[in-house]
Amino acid sequence: MSVVDDTARKITDMSIRGAGRIARAGASAIGDFARTYEGKSLEGFLVDLDMAVDTLVASRPTAVSLWNGVHAAVKGVSDCGSLEEAIEKVSENADRFVEASSKAVETIAKIGAKRIKDGDTILTHCNSSAALGVIKEAHRQGKDIKVYATESRPWRQGILTVTDLANNGIDVTLVIDSAVRSVMKRIDKIFVGADTITSDGVLINKIGTSQLALAAHERRVPFYVCTETYKFSPMTLFGDMVVIEERDISEVVKPGEVPDSVKVFNPVFDSTPGRYIDALITEIGMISPGSVYGVMAGQLGETAFSKE
Amino acid sequence: MSVVDDTARKITDMSIRGAGRIARAGASAIGDFARTYEGKSLEGFLVDLDMAVDTLVASRPTAVSLWNGVHAAVKGVSDCGSLEEAIEKVSENADRFVEASSKAVETIAKIGAKRIKDGDTILTHCNSSAALGVIKEAHRQGKDIKVYATESRPWRQGILTVTDLANNGIDVTLVIDSAVRSVMKRIDKIFVGADTITSDGVLINKIGTSQLALAAHERRVPFYVCTETYKFSPMTLFGDMVVIEERDISEVVKPGEVPDSVKVFNPVFDSTPGRYIDALITEIGMISPGSVYGVMAGQLGETAFSKE
Amino acid sequence: MSVVDDTARKITDMSIRGAGRIARAGASAIGDFARTYEGKSLEGFLVDLDMAVDTLVASRPTAVSLWNGVHAAVKGVSDCGSLEEAIEKVSENADRFVEASSKAVETIAKIGAKRIKDGDTILTHCNSSAALGVIKEAHRQGKDIKVYATESRPWRQGILTVTDLANNGIDVTLVIDSAVRSVMKRIDKIFVGADTITSDGVLINKIGTSQLALAAHERRVPFYVCTETYKFSPMTLFGDMVVIEERDISEVVKPGEVPDSVKVFNPVFDSTPGRYIDALITEIGMISPGSVYGVMAGQLGETAFSKE
Amino acid sequence: MSVVDDTARKITDMSIRGAGRIARAGASAIGDFARTYEGKSLEGFLVDLDMAVDTLVASRPTAVSLWNGVHAAVKGVSDCGSLEEAIEKVSENADRFVEASSKAVETIAKIGAKRIKDGDTILTHCNSSAALGVIKEAHRQGKDIKVYATESRPWRQGILTVTDLANNGIDVTLVIDSAVRSVMKRIDKIFVGADTITSDGVLINKIGTSQLALAAHERRVPFYVCTETYKFSPMTLFGDMVVIEERDISEVVKPGEVPDSVKVFNPVFDSTPGRYIDALITEIGMISPGSVYGVMAGQLGETAFSKE
Amino acid sequence: MSVVDDTARKITDMSIRGAGRIARAGASAIGDFARTYEGKSLEGFLVDLDMAVDTLVASRPTAVSLWNGVHAAVKGVSDCGSLEEAIEKVSENADRFVEASSKAVETIAKIGAKRIKDGDTILTHCNSSAALGVIKEAHRQGKDIKVYATESRPWRQGILTVTDLANNGIDVTLVIDSAVRSVMKRIDKIFVGADTITSDGVLINKIGTSQLALAAHERRVPFYVCTETYKFSPMTLFGDMVVIEERDISEVVKPGEVPDSVKVFNPVFDSTPGRYIDALITEIGMISPGSVYGVMAGQLGETAFSKE
Amino acid sequence: MSVVDDTARKITDMSIRGAGRIARAGASAIGDFARTYEGKSLEGFLVDLDMAVDTLVASRPTAVSLWNGVHAAVKGVSDCGSLEEAIEKVSENADRFVEASSKAVETIAKIGAKRIKDGDTILTHCNSSAALGVIKEAHRQGKDIKVYATESRPWRQGILTVTDLANNGIDVTLVIDSAVRSVMKRIDKIFVGADTITSDGVLINKIGTSQLALAAHERRVPFYVCTETYKFSPMTLFGDMVVIEERDISEVVKPGEVPDSVKVFNPVFDSTPGRYIDALITEIGMISPGSVYGVMAGQLGETAFSKE
Repeated sequence: MSVVDDTARKITDMSIRGAGRIARAGASAIGDFARTYEGKSLEGFLVDLDMAVDTLVASRPTAVSLWNGVHAAVKGVSDCGSLEEAIEKVSENADRFVEASSKAVETIAKIGAKRIKDGDTILTHCNSSAALGVIKEAHRQGKDIKVYATESRPWRQGILTVTDLANNGIDVTLVIDSAVRSVMKRIDKIFVGADTITSDGVLINKIGTSQLALAAHERRVPFYVCTETYKFSPMTLFGDMVVIEERDISEVVKPGEVPDSVKVFNPVFDSTPGRYIDALITEIGMISPGSVYGVMAGQLGETAFSKE
Repeated sequence: MSVVDDTARKITDMSIRGAGRIARAGASAIGDFARTYEGKSLEGFLVDLDMAVDTLVASRPTAVSLWNGVHAAVKGVSDCGSLEEAIEKVSENADRFVEASSKAVETIAKIGAKRIKDGDTILTHCNSSAALGVIKEAHRQGKDIKVYATESRPWRQGILTVTDLANNGIDVTLVIDSAVRSVMKRIDKIFVGADTITSDGVLINKIGTSQLALAAHERRVPFYVCTETYKFSPMTLFGDMVVIEERDISEVVKPGEVPDSVKVFNPVFDSTPGRYIDALITEIGMISPGSVYGVMAGQLGETAFSKE
Repeated sequence: MSVVDDTARKITDMSIRGAGRIARAGASAIGDFARTYEGKSLEGFLVDLDMAVDTLVASRPTAVSLWNGVHAAVKGVSDCGSLEEAIEKVSENADRFVEASSKAVETIAKIGAKRIKDGDTILTHCNSSAALGVIKEAHRQGKDIKVYATESRPWRQGILTVTDLANNGIDVTLVIDSAVRSVMKRIDKIFVGADTITSDGVLINKIGTSQLALAAHERRVPFYVCTETYKFSPMTLFGDMVVIEERDISEVVKPGEVPDSVKVFNPVFDSTPGRYIDALITEIGMISPGSVYGVMAGQLGETAFSKE
Repeated sequence: MSVVDDTARKITDMSIRGAGRIARAGASAIGDFARTYEGKSLEGFLVDLDMAVDTLVASRPTAVSLWNGVHAAVKGVSDCGSLEEAIEKVSENADRFVEASSKAVETIAKIGAKRIKDGDTILTHCNSSAALGVIKEAHRQGKDIKVYATESRPWRQGILTVTDLANNGIDVTLVIDSAVRSVMKRIDKIFVGADTITSDGVLINKIGTSQLALAAHERRVPFYVCTETYKFSPMTLFGDMVVIEERDISEVVKPGEVPDSVKVFNPVFDSTPGRYIDALITEIGMISPGSVYGVMAGQLGETAFSKE
Repeated sequence: MSVVDDTARKITDMSIRGAGRIARAGASAIGDFARTYEGKSLEGFLVDLDMAVDTLVASRPTAVSLWNGVHAAVKGVSDCGSLEEAIEKVSENADRFVEASSKAVETIAKIGAKRIKDGDTILTHCNSSAALGVIKEAHRQGKDIKVYATESRPWRQGILTVTDLANNGIDVTLVIDSAVRSVMKRIDKIFVGADTITSDGVLINKIGTSQLALAAHERRVPFYVCTETYKFSPMTLFGDMVVIEERDISEVVKPGEVPDSVKVFNPVFDSTPGRYIDALITEIGMISPGSVYGVMAGQLGETAFSKE
Repeated sequence: MSVVDDTARKITDMSIRGAGRIARAGASAIGDFARTYEGKSLEGFLVDLDMAVDTLVASRPTAVSLWNGVHAAVKGVSDCGSLEEAIEKVSENADRFVEASSKAVETIAKIGAKRIKDGDTILTHCNSSAALGVIKEAHRQGKDIKVYATESRPWRQGILTVTDLANNGIDVTLVIDSAVRSVMKRIDKIFVGADTITSDGVLINKIGTSQLALAAHERRVPFYVCTETYKFSPMTLFGDMVVIEERDISEVVKPGEVPDSVKVFNPVFDSTPGRYIDALITEIGMISPGSVYGVMAGQLGETAFSKE
């Protein structure tokens, strides 16, 4: 079971990181585990498989994509009638997930780019590879576009975003986070990424996203979320709250800059209700937030549900 | 006419600055001009007074408070029947404006503090002396309050705000500008200052104010604007747009931090419609944005209107 | 000064009660005080008058109408040049207020009734004489109307309302308080009364009013508030919060009906923002909530403001 | 009294028409009546003046502007101490109204044009001289603007509008009435005229105006109403409903075009609530709908109110 | 077929009542019918099964849960190739439904309790066992919560609710129905039950629910509906309106309390649109109202649809 | 392959037109192609079938219904193990689609008519056979209804609508397009048709539809869209924008009616977001816009997706 342990350790120690990469690593490890399985009974295989799943999921328990990648690999295995069938099933599942996941960002870019018209002005937030993929694909197709990008304090990922877009030859303007509503009347469409999508269609993403969605809703500027479906969180189906990490004061103020009694509220993400989202652009197409449960139910096998 | 020229020069070269101070300096200069007038005819006085007004207003043409201070000093002078009467009128006007203006922030603090209940959590933006006056007065009265203050990029006046409040012993938390909507569910009331109030009840204030007002409106958190009435802009009555200054890229990014082709949109103020404002707290009381014209019409004399 | 003391005592011990009646009694007492004044100097009169004002206001400090009646009687007195002039001024003021106040409900009924068309269905809440006056006047004019009235728990003043209207031959239907939104699609217009109107156009009225206003706003059913202008609260101009009384659990549950640990939140009034109010129907005409400050400023004399 | 009768007849038989023209004709007739008055007593004059007022108002009872013009001419006359004073008062009032009214459209054009920026795209409805004055003034000032104008079925006044604007060299596009929401995302500002403004800030204007205001509100496109203050209706202060005329089926369908049983609902005006209006642009400045009562109260004399 | 007839009679005469119990009784009866079937041909079985279904559904034709329980039991039977297979299918279906239904309230409690955080204040309406299950589960987990419960006139089920919660040691406060908007600013989350959920995601529940949802939406307080999926109504998929019963005047007023001509509008339920619902918490997870059709289509077999 | 070519030609030259008819013609042609196929290998058949699909789709590339009809006919064929099986599959698919499509409008009429109550007043737009089917079915059932129909400039299909309804004995009133908001307070429910439904639940329909939906939303009047599911556009799932045709100026103005420089913006359709739609009434039932993706995913086979 060393490939499983090895992968779990790399995920834990951050040698493997990024939502997509850890999902694919988890699925691969399950596939490899199956292909190299040396036991002889189906029952034994299923027990050991369960342990492999648990080991991998435990390596980053809050990562939705990892959970999804690992469970995609074992989907339907409990219906198999023989060890051979089970091994083949898991192996195929794993390969299919890895391939699909690799293509997902590219597919999202193609789908999303169709929503952009020549002459459009786009707003984006933080530094989402899926959202930037859409914008760069539209530019590659020769569409004449302008982009506004938020600074995204405190880490200022907006600097990465404007640098990336400018290096691609795209007309890009940086705005501070408090200027989002001011700039909204110039904007035709908004594309952001996602950290997690809940079963009832709520978006969890970089702090500031919900404010941007609210300002977009006020003027009815279309707000699109670019997200691979393995960011759909099955745990939320079972009611789990997405825990929003609060980080240290040092990310916002320098030592001694403010009196010691001053606190800093520094949450990483915020929560955008489905009613402010026009569509989710995923690798299986453009859907509404109300359709998330359906996709989730289709992708999860009996295994996942019966474990609850 | 040297006091007028002298004051105008000091306003222009920024030796006198701050909305309140330049308004009082302008009114004072008009009062001194009248008291030391050496001409003998009413007609001559009115002509020279007009020139003095023009000189002072021209020293900072976009400052609403200066315009208001200077015009408050000459209000009703055209109805006077003699030179003596006119001089006395102007002199009294000027003194009354200076005194009222000095007391205004204090009065606003007292009125606004009554809106705060024991246990309230307050949100403020940027660094408004009128808004902070309200908060500090409530604290002085022994009310147990908490305050959230925004960072207010790019100048980060929030650092000044949290320092001031913490030094006054108030429980204060700093939040980045993009966390405003996230923090809103904890907030009971909002107090912000004003740069300008238009005749149709629109607030012009530090960039980010309108976003905060929108997020407050979404949850029906009361949004109060603390403003002296000399920030009510009569020019807007005559249709003038409030020009919103755009400042340099260097305030937002360091040299070389982004590719040269990247632009920065860096507006100083934004515009909050009256429908998101619960009340204006002024030195003449707490009024609704729909009442601004009435106050303005009452404060402006015939002079101001007939000059249009 | 016995008429003043006598009136103050009757107000305190509830022999005189009702917003209109105490306002008129206060104004009358001030008028009588002036007419029977035996001092000889204007200065003395003004000092004694101030004491009379304080005595009366202190007899029911939270009653906006009393404050208004008493201050209406002394309006402009400080500008008088002689004792005779001052006495005449106060006497006339008092008489005018008493007469105007008496006619106000009748005037409101006439103005409001014009807003009702043949065939209209009206909704009202609690048991407001001003609102019922409007409805009964429309019926008296021969208009064919239907009325829905809420039960208005816990005192169930709706029983009084439906009885009064039915006795006047009006087609009336009682609904429980939780059916307000359900019934809204049948309603053409809403008329309610007021306890207090604040300087920024907020309505304080019987608990449930704001919920009714919200449901009306959702469907854009016109929401009219019938209110004498002496219910406009000058104290709110100076920032005072309207204190909302919370009453005893015994009004809602019978002894022993619920376990002892159960609490009851039983507020008498609630607060309806101006943005949900289409118009205030007053004895001086139909105005928008944004106009309250203007009316208030016109009605209050220098006295009132300078006392702050 | 022949000038009064003569003017009244011309208004009735439509030889004099247009809101502005009949207002000025009414005021002029009152001024002429006063200047040529041959009676000797003030009492007699006031009685005869009342009759003249009634005659003129009765010549077009629903025209707010006529009522306002005539009452502006008699404002304050009841306070006069002698016949001569009364005649002079009325004469001056009449002249002042006529002059102010003549200048009002021009003043509105200047104020409104300041709200338009170089590069703006404007939407207008029907064929309002005040709104078109604003647009043409902005063009005259050299601003580069585009205009969309609605067809305004059934009379298609949009044809007049686009012709007028095109003849002035302005870039103009006609849209059908049902395309208003479709075109809204291209629009920066809206300017429409007014038939009547009520005391609580409601706009009565050409059918379709409220739909346009709603679509503007949905995207927060500023919606400006260009209106002379003599379109503010004092009758509405006293509760009068503005009667909205319904016109004949023949304006919409040709004879025989539809079966006889088909009805046509063809109202001339509709009603736009103040909450969808950003500002009223009047000859006394740009004000909010909440300020209408204050302006009305200032313009109406005791006469008007005491007649109620 | 006696078990079917017997069950039908007990449902009709109310010996079996409650949405869950009648659903399980219906499914059980169908299972028993199959297991004890004595005929020999598949065709005969299907005909008799249809009659059994009709008999049971007719015993309470408006009960969504009964319809769902009975149809769940026969799902997929028409695809069976032999009598034995058909009997086994029906038997298994029935057992599975009964078990799942029994566990549903418990599962909902577990899922819903995860949405509650330590320190939360909850609002509930009427007396829903699913909603109370959620609240009691959160309390059992040691979370420190406060609950507000509405009185729910006219039956005042709120008395039951506060008694139940207080007996469980939960901090609970009763409010009258008209205080819902007043209390909303203290509320973190709302949990209510359901009578019926329509195919387009509308909630039918105790009168007052929609008013509570509207007030929650105004302040963006999350509004959760706790509902077993057998309350999803397939009849609404085919367009059927949910009939809302109106009950007798005697539930609201005592005999003689109001004049005879007074009517009472006393509906049992009201209708809350999906746009005011944040999520449905069901035994299959937390879903959005837009997902109801998908769940319904998955749960209904061909049988149900082909019978239309 | 002549039936395919023949059908394609007839679709191109408009001998076959109407969304339903071309969809059925396309499916039929594919069915005939299969039934008359003379090749011997499955591989060859699949290749030729692909060509047939391409030929038919290319005959009207923007018609969603054609695409859907043709792809419904080939659904699942790639899973067939033999030529015979494949031919039978396609043949059955085609027949089933043709039959279902024929019945769809009738089914929609029955479902929709259940949403109409005795006494309802209905609003419709343009001339949709599905929406009119609903209205006429309700009338046929003896319900007493009133209908308002918009004129629908520029083609004035409202004339067809009112003529059709009047000829069926229905009480119908025509309104001009700009009176939609004015008439809304008389309306109980709205039924319109659809040109296309996107994967994220957006309605594309005759210009003016979105304005009507907005005015309905403002007053919470239920807005129903009557649409066969073959108007659900799979292309939009892959991000395609629905192209909205702009038509000639001559449809709006007569030659010479306006100066040459006047432009006309004359779009055929507009776009209504799902948040303004209460339900889609389809032949598979009444669903919410959030459920469109689920239906689409169920109806499309692997073929369609794998071709992307």
